[in-house]
Amino acid sequence: MSGSVSPLAPKTFAEIPPLRGVRMATAAAGIKYKGRTDVLMMVFDAPAAVAGVFTTSKCPSAPVDFCKANLGGGTARAVVVNSGNANAFTGRKGRESTAMTAAAAARAVGCGEGEVFLASTGVIGEPLDATKFSGVLDGLAVSAREDFWFEAAKAIMTTDTYPKVATRTARIGDAAVRINGIAKGAGMIAPDMATMLSFVVTDADIPAATLQVLLSEAVKPTFNSVTVDSDTSTSDTLMLFATGAARADGQPPVNGPADPALAEFRTALNDLLKDLALQVVRDGEGARKMVAVTVEGAESAAAAKRIALSIANSPLVKTAVAGEDANWGRVVMAVGKSGEMADRDRLAIWFGDVRVAVDGERDPAYSEDAASAVMKAEDIEIRVEIGLGTGRATVWTCDLTKEYVEINGDYRS
Amino acid sequence: MSGSVSPLAPKTFAEIPPLRGVRMATAAAGIKYKGRTDVLMMVFDAPAAVAGVFTTSKCPSAPVDFCKANLGGGTARAVVVNSGNANAFTGRKGRESTAMTAAAAARAVGCGEGEVFLASTGVIGEPLDATKFSGVLDGLAVSAREDFWFEAAKAIMTTDTYPKVATRTARIGDAAVRINGIAKGAGMIAPDMATMLSFVVTDADIPAATLQVLLSEAVKPTFNSVTVDSDTSTSDTLMLFATGAARADGQPPVNGPADPALAEFRTALNDLLKDLALQVVRDGEGARKMVAVTVEGAESAAAAKRIALSIANSPLVKTAVAGEDANWGRVVMAVGKSGEMADRDRLAIWFGDVRVAVDGERDPAYSEDAASAVMKAEDIEIRVEIGLGTGRATVWTCDLTKEYVEINGDYRS
Repeated sequence: MSGSVSPLAPKTFAEIPPLRGVRMATAAAGIKYKGRTDVLMMVFDAPAAVAGVFTTSKCPSAPVDFCKANLGGGTARAVVVNSGNANAFTGRKGRESTAMTAAAAARAVGCGEGEVFLASTGVIGEPLDATKFSGVLDGLAVSAREDFWFEAAKAIMTTDTYPKVATRTARIGDAAVRINGIAKGAGMIAPDMATMLSFVVTDADIPAATLQVLLSEAVKPTFNSVTVDSDTSTSDTLMLFATGAARADGQPPVNGPADPALAEFRTALNDLLKDLALQVVRDGEGARKMVAVTVEGAESAAAAKRIALSIANSPLVKTAVAGEDANWGRVVMAVGKSGEMADRDRLAIWFGDVRVAVDGERDPAYSEDAASAVMKAEDIEIRVEIGLGTGRATVWTCDLTKEYVEINGDYRS
Repeated sequence: MSGSVSPLAPKTFAEIPPLRGVRMATAAAGIKYKGRTDVLMMVFDAPAAVAGVFTTSKCPSAPVDFCKANLGGGTARAVVVNSGNANAFTGRKGRESTAMTAAAAARAVGCGEGEVFLASTGVIGEPLDATKFSGVLDGLAVSAREDFWFEAAKAIMTTDTYPKVATRTARIGDAAVRINGIAKGAGMIAPDMATMLSFVVTDADIPAATLQVLLSEAVKPTFNSVTVDSDTSTSDTLMLFATGAARADGQPPVNGPADPALAEFRTALNDLLKDLALQVVRDGEGARKMVAVTVEGAESAAAAKRIALSIANSPLVKTAVAGEDANWGRVVMAVGKSGEMADRDRLAIWFGDVRVAVDGERDPAYSEDAASAVMKAEDIEIRVEIGLGTGRATVWTCDLTKEYVEINGDYRS
């Protein structure tokens, strides 16, 4: 851990108001870290509708398997999250650990184990001793409070240098609803479910099946469009819960994902997830600069995204950004290696507002000074026009610095 | 450039004997570097058969386009290579530059422009002023010598810290033939034609079509199985020339690529290409450790290679190696993200001879001391058993160090 807060951290944190229907509590169980909280419990006193998206890794963690199995039930009463140990690649012991934790949580809140959801983040391959925290869940279920979002975000941090929180409001019919979310993640971040962990709760009344559609759609241009290091975690988990408390305010029932009444909610959810996803990138391990890569004019939106990710994941592009070097030749390289159609002689590239290349060669008006000035900023935009179609995508990444190497050269020890 | 030689460099360089039918000369044209040679000319006094494989980049350099167009002719009389400027993404100016160089080379050796092959390596996007070196080719064609391989390898270096040379012998029928090769490359190294530049010459008498088959086969387990940083150059070029001088020793004509008389030659060629490819990895920018990643028991050889590359290209695996951390959890992560079939509960992982994981969890006999001892070595083997089939592949990479970031943070300036 680097010890200091990312220079890209938000200057102020959003105030996250209480959200009706969910209470939270944290504990310091000493799983790996000393002197900080490392267990989070969320309690839904009435059953909440639940949706989730998870890592596409072929070697998912035990909690990911556990959550996927419970998702079909559609309701949640408790969530238990720990940091410091991912409970991944832990075999039979890992399954025993999730079973023990779920049983303890179910007892604590008085629900079935099928209404419990679990997540773990931290080191892979170390057995997780669930006895360390299953004993505290009874107390947490009692002490859990509605106004505890910031503390909740802190308890799930690993190499994060700041907690990640966001809140939005929307109207469904005449009822005002709220969405609150927390996230953690700083490394092992790449699309195919890019966050490590994120938990989002709304007081809207939305059935689980509709909630799942909304979440699956919203994840693509947000969490699945950010990358720190192209590495995909075994544990990536994003869950969305709807407590339904807004029913009491007269929120009308929702009629499937296409219901026009969801328009504002959909926008707010998308916006909140993007906020959290960008906070994850801004806390990228060792990051000093945030980079938005936009590709336009590709054959399709999917092609644009693959080209954008090829640029955003290129070590040579990322080290050039770290060095404040307007090295657009490496952007050409990354376009070329993406495997997508590109016509070298139609390419144009911008750093910020400065067009550095056009028609397959250096811009005739190229100014090294102007391009270099763009690279000095904390936030950098790279834009590439492919010139073949209308496909467009934006992805976000950070630079690759010596600090990334340092942090990851001895994370375990 | 780092200024010091890679700690993984060969302790001694192979003596490369003359090879009948090819002469070489170099010049210091001041293209980018001062006080060193940066132009290489190879001259075949009689037409040589030629084969080549090139970058799969959709944005190839002008010399790559030029070579591909000439390859159909099947014969070579001259090769001109420069370092310091890749002549890539240089548009019309780039094509003018290759045309001018080819015309000058053709005049110098008295051949057609279709028998000239060109390669350029260095910065992308800067126009290459071919007048800087086209004037010296007349002189080089005259002064070129057979015993000049080591100097030739030096002239094509960019961020390389040592020249890369190799030589092998084989028998075809009763005739002894020789293969000599040079290569350059240290960064922007990834499969899909992994070298940056390599030129290999044999005095065997092998027709161009057969030569092409031999080369295309041999590149897969060699140059296309190494990766430094997953970035694919716009300029990757590997060419193989056969001067046919061994005809004079009674080498029998070759009857297509399946001719059993080629068995020994094929082995020698493969071995030489692997030697050169591993020299490229050992000179990986900032590299302190060489890593061989072997995947066994995958569904197919292709699946094994994709899993092996997922491990070898993972920044988290590579930084762990740099930190001498036996972090096999990151190997699990990289297997999981590869997209290939894997059953978490059948995986086994070795660092060197130490089995660290088996049956989907930490090896019961796991010893941190034993695993850490393996990581202290300069050469590290990571082996993964997938447990699903018989597919097998080995790829080679290096660690990811702060020096890589440093070298690439200001390569251009």
